[in-house]
Amino acid sequence: MKKKWLYGMLAAIGAFAFPVSAFAAEGEVTTAVLELGLNSLFVFVAAMLVFFMQAGFALLEAGTVRMKNAGHVAGKTVLTLGITVIVWWALGFAFAFGDGNSFLGTTGFLFGGDSAIGSFSVFSEIGVPLNLMFLFQMAFAAVSLAIACGGMAERAKLSVYIVFGVLFVGLIYPIVAHWVWGGGWLGALGMQDYAGSTVVHLTGATAALVATILLKPRLGKYNKDGKPNSIPGHNQVLTVLGVIILWIGWFGFNPGSALTPLGDGFFGYVLATTNLAAAAGAVAALLISWAVMGKSDIPSMLNGVLAALVAITGSCAFVDAWASIVIGAVAGVLTFFTARWFERAGIDDPIYAFSVHGIAGVWGAISTGLFATPELAETTGVGTAGLFYGGGFGQLGVQLLGVIGTFAFVLAVSFIILGGMKVLMGLRVTEEEEMMGLDISEHGTYGYPEQMSLLQQETSSVKPSANHVS
Amino acid sequence: MKKKWLYGMLAAIGAFAFPVSAFAAEGEVTTAVLELGLNSLFVFVAAMLVFFMQAGFALLEAGTVRMKNAGHVAGKTVLTLGITVIVWWALGFAFAFGDGNSFLGTTGFLFGGDSAIGSFSVFSEIGVPLNLMFLFQMAFAAVSLAIACGGMAERAKLSVYIVFGVLFVGLIYPIVAHWVWGGGWLGALGMQDYAGSTVVHLTGATAALVATILLKPRLGKYNKDGKPNSIPGHNQVLTVLGVIILWIGWFGFNPGSALTPLGDGFFGYVLATTNLAAAAGAVAALLISWAVMGKSDIPSMLNGVLAALVAITGSCAFVDAWASIVIGAVAGVLTFFTARWFERAGIDDPIYAFSVHGIAGVWGAISTGLFATPELAETTGVGTAGLFYGGGFGQLGVQLLGVIGTFAFVLAVSFIILGGMKVLMGLRVTEEEEMMGLDISEHGTYGYPEQMSLLQQETSSVKPSANHVS
Amino acid sequence: MKKKWLYGMLAAIGAFAFPVSAFAAEGEVTTAVLELGLNSLFVFVAAMLVFFMQAGFALLEAGTVRMKNAGHVAGKTVLTLGITVIVWWALGFAFAFGDGNSFLGTTGFLFGGDSAIGSFSVFSEIGVPLNLMFLFQMAFAAVSLAIACGGMAERAKLSVYIVFGVLFVGLIYPIVAHWVWGGGWLGALGMQDYAGSTVVHLTGATAALVATILLKPRLGKYNKDGKPNSIPGHNQVLTVLGVIILWIGWFGFNPGSALTPLGDGFFGYVLATTNLAAAAGAVAALLISWAVMGKSDIPSMLNGVLAALVAITGSCAFVDAWASIVIGAVAGVLTFFTARWFERAGIDDPIYAFSVHGIAGVWGAISTGLFATPELAETTGVGTAGLFYGGGFGQLGVQLLGVIGTFAFVLAVSFIILGGMKVLMGLRVTEEEEMMGLDISEHGTYGYPEQMSLLQQETSSVKPSANHVS
Repeated sequence: MKKKWLYGMLAAIGAFAFPVSAFAAEGEVTTAVLELGLNSLFVFVAAMLVFFMQAGFALLEAGTVRMKNAGHVAGKTVLTLGITVIVWWALGFAFAFGDGNSFLGTTGFLFGGDSAIGSFSVFSEIGVPLNLMFLFQMAFAAVSLAIACGGMAERAKLSVYIVFGVLFVGLIYPIVAHWVWGGGWLGALGMQDYAGSTVVHLTGATAALVATILLKPRLGKYNKDGKPNSIPGHNQVLTVLGVIILWIGWFGFNPGSALTPLGDGFFGYVLATTNLAAAAGAVAALLISWAVMGKSDIPSMLNGVLAALVAITGSCAFVDAWASIVIGAVAGVLTFFTARWFERAGIDDPIYAFSVHGIAGVWGAISTGLFATPELAETTGVGTAGLFYGGGFGQLGVQLLGVIGTFAFVLAVSFIILGGMKVLMGLRVTEEEEMMGLDISEHGTYGYPEQMSLLQQETSSVKPSANHVS
Repeated sequence: MKKKWLYGMLAAIGAFAFPVSAFAAEGEVTTAVLELGLNSLFVFVAAMLVFFMQAGFALLEAGTVRMKNAGHVAGKTVLTLGITVIVWWALGFAFAFGDGNSFLGTTGFLFGGDSAIGSFSVFSEIGVPLNLMFLFQMAFAAVSLAIACGGMAERAKLSVYIVFGVLFVGLIYPIVAHWVWGGGWLGALGMQDYAGSTVVHLTGATAALVATILLKPRLGKYNKDGKPNSIPGHNQVLTVLGVIILWIGWFGFNPGSALTPLGDGFFGYVLATTNLAAAAGAVAALLISWAVMGKSDIPSMLNGVLAALVAITGSCAFVDAWASIVIGAVAGVLTFFTARWFERAGIDDPIYAFSVHGIAGVWGAISTGLFATPELAETTGVGTAGLFYGGGFGQLGVQLLGVIGTFAFVLAVSFIILGGMKVLMGLRVTEEEEMMGLDISEHGTYGYPEQMSLLQQETSSVKPSANHVS
Repeated sequence: MKKKWLYGMLAAIGAFAFPVSAFAAEGEVTTAVLELGLNSLFVFVAAMLVFFMQAGFALLEAGTVRMKNAGHVAGKTVLTLGITVIVWWALGFAFAFGDGNSFLGTTGFLFGGDSAIGSFSVFSEIGVPLNLMFLFQMAFAAVSLAIACGGMAERAKLSVYIVFGVLFVGLIYPIVAHWVWGGGWLGALGMQDYAGSTVVHLTGATAALVATILLKPRLGKYNKDGKPNSIPGHNQVLTVLGVIILWIGWFGFNPGSALTPLGDGFFGYVLATTNLAAAAGAVAALLISWAVMGKSDIPSMLNGVLAALVAITGSCAFVDAWASIVIGAVAGVLTFFTARWFERAGIDDPIYAFSVHGIAGVWGAISTGLFATPELAETTGVGTAGLFYGGGFGQLGVQLLGVIGTFAFVLAVSFIILGGMKVLMGLRVTEEEEMMGLDISEHGTYGYPEQMSLLQQETSSVKPSANHVS
């Protein structure tokens, strides 16, 4: 409880590339020290919100699957989070943000928590201590992996999550992050991706797409004629809770990417566009589902919220308030139709990972090429105005290049990795295990033991109702 | 990742009515800029906590209804949140806080996120950027709407939430907010309502009361002799989680209303009174339920927590620590008895919205007229001391006027709006739809498909147990 | 909405032992005032995270018990939180941190929220307002009580939680807290316990151990030959959510104990070690369960996360990043084996409170005696280097003394209190009540009324399945 260490640390600040005021009295903190502390606290709060998104994903996914798989799905989120933290520390942070070349970082492995910038010169002018950036960016990597794992739900073996998790956080994600944010070639071209429509969401979603294709559809998803059956999630209340948590988590994701609360509330502006987009996505997706299906569909509305948030992630700092509403509403509608289209095309993506994070991620990257205003491009210092604001096709082209490059790279590497794993270790549980559910087959206990005993009672004595595929 | 935009924004701060220090060195932030950033971050944190209350309401309400309505109830919270954000942006913020007259604001529609104070001169001296105030106040509006919707549970059509949500956030709530906080007549009279016992809670609760009266009781709630049946909520664990989230959310609501962390921890004092009141409400309500019913009733305890928080919302910054305990305990007991009284009087308010937010809101408004200390009234600069601290009946009179004015206004307007909607579009689903549950009838799928199939199995073959009305 | 009160409070700061700058212009805040505000906000954020841990404990415990006890277990968390707040205000804060002797504090009862340091001179140099410290430390006391109550699950009477809660928060916990952090004898010896492996976790866990021994095992836990039966929790999804919330809450617990965001992100370093340990605990516990049991066990993994967090709580600010991984992994493995050992030894600890918080708490206290680096011991200003860093057995001896002293004290006092309660009022519900479940027997309603009616239907007509003991 002594302040000794505080002044000890302040003395060490010389190592940090940051202006230190000269006029402070003895024992008095300077404005530069306060700015550093304020930014630290801001990034801490933002990182906590992004970290909390893991609870959101656990609930969203668990609520969207059947009771017999719910414990497995929730539990594997904790496991992949653990893997992310360790691998990000050992490898990911260095590959993503270490000094290196325009393809990947090559220094800073086994990050030791030193406050000197050292191997991470990309952070030398942002005024946030290195430890905080390590954690903030780790939370982003964890989100990307959670998205990727969504495509594996209800049929992949637990060991697949472990092996793929290590490779995704250790290699795939850091390379894309390096390209855009870590000093790589897409950043050099001026790609606008404020908080990661492309880097985080499209990357995770592309891996999820590969996984869902290689794993093949769940048992019972398609009839012999190829017509899909609905396999509703077992708990919409948990799904709703997950989506509200994700919505709030995004307020760390996007505004947090400002990395400072200074600047007359600019992060508050990013918060406003993020929030408006999410709201527009909710309302638009609900209404379109009502119009098309004849009933207002809650899962469609929830996907609309998430899709809108994914889309605005890239463009939140570049567009006007009204444009954020358009971007969110379009994302909600797009995702509604593409989710149906993928399902009919024989791609069984249980959590709709590719529609929500992939399609909307692409739309988000394109949207800033359309709606970026000259003033905000100038303010953020990234790229130029979009097509609708007199910027021509230049920025739009860069955005498309980023999307195509990311998609192609992640698609190829994921196919190699998951394809190799399929040959070497197998990706999918046996048919019998899948019928039993992954809770009991992978972990030896049900997530809901009392309720499963009731359900088994029923299925052994009566015909299952039309409401679920068991 | 450049700081260019930061200094760009700092240059724009001249537009902001805030003292900027002259002595800072080149490239150095001033204490005024740091104060602005610190306040921004404070309000951000508070707004996140208040926003998180939506998760609390979703869980509280979903847990308090039956399984057949739980998906609907949780899902509509996301929908009404979406509506709030859009309507607050287009209309609500301007009506509430825009410059205008003592009845409502008339400028600032379609808020564009400009940092200049412009149409919102009520915020000109608080030292918080406009975007943050927009979001903080939006979160309050969303809470008020969530309370209002509580009265509609288990029988209102989804379309009612949409239409009423637009009118409530666009018109009813902003007018009351303007009266007290936006430059209106109650603020001018010195009404003490620190964070909204009256503005947020009584307003929402009065609308809920009107809705529950116009909708009439749920099927099966009352026997032919008028005696009420208990319709217990389906999941107390979710309800408990909702209440803990709301409790924490209130730490954004009340202390956040200080709008700054400066002032030697004054917001921490507000936090302390808020917390003490909540605790007292929990203990008092549990004990009174034990004494009256012979069993310690968990839902009563949870309502006691919320009622105490509602009551202290208005008085948290004006009263002593011991008084906050009295206010919370009285709120817990009052709500216990009034909830029973309303139920017996034939008013079926499924979430107890009017008892918890209305009765306790009135008690909160009165309590500061009784317990406000001269020192704290002086410190906050609002109103005078209460009756028990030598302030006479003056402040108490203002508080009563505020309560009566708010109640009468919201009652009248809600009756006109909901009454008109009842004639034009109908408020309630059909009997058959209500029996099926709103999950399936309004949305086409159950929130709990597997569990509902078990429940239907049972109800089709055996007599329902005494524990639930199905 | 006036700033009047702000400047009013600033004038009062003279009472606060904190350097106030002299060079600020008229109406301008000084860097000292900003530092105080920044620290206030930091501690506020940290306290919110720690407070949120109550939701984590409620979910962890409720998910780990059977459906018939879930409402009771969740609800009692709200009750014990209410008790903690009131008793901490009246007694606990004063006993723990008031001025007094090396055994306990003797001044500062009925804390009034005054900002002057007054009776709490231990806080005179930390630069955080008293109200914030009151709340931050209250949240710690609430965690310790939640741990203690874990040992009572599924069989203790509600009245036991009330009486024991008052005595634990009012007496037992504050005394240990005083010894280490409040100016007591263990602090004077240089015991390293950064955020409370010993103070918070071992204290709570020791009380839980006494409770679980005095209460005796749950009905059906052991066969006549003494072999334990598995009584799986009813909802792993809620348990997972609880653990993720606790993981995040720990980011307030440990980094928050830095009490300031200044110091070039030192709290971020504490965050990094905390996070690495948790991740290592998750992975290690999952793998060891897989190796030993043949299935990767989700509850074991979740206990591994918590055990690792408990262990790193004491050492987070003293050890290298790699050491935090070792500490976490060892904690995860240790807890796995000790939990099995206790179960086989006839100690029925339903939430594994003593294994997770007690054994890992001891390991955490020892670990800093092994791994503390000279630099970090110097930086924090507490104790010396550990055995592996050339510090010899000195620090290790202090740590062992602290562990033994705390364990012996809490064990003795808890036996006296709970033993006395057992004689005077009884600790346990009747056999019949336990069979019915505590929801209905203690509170008169089920937490899950619809699901329980299904379960009763089943158990009255068919043999219970092997998956649960009912």
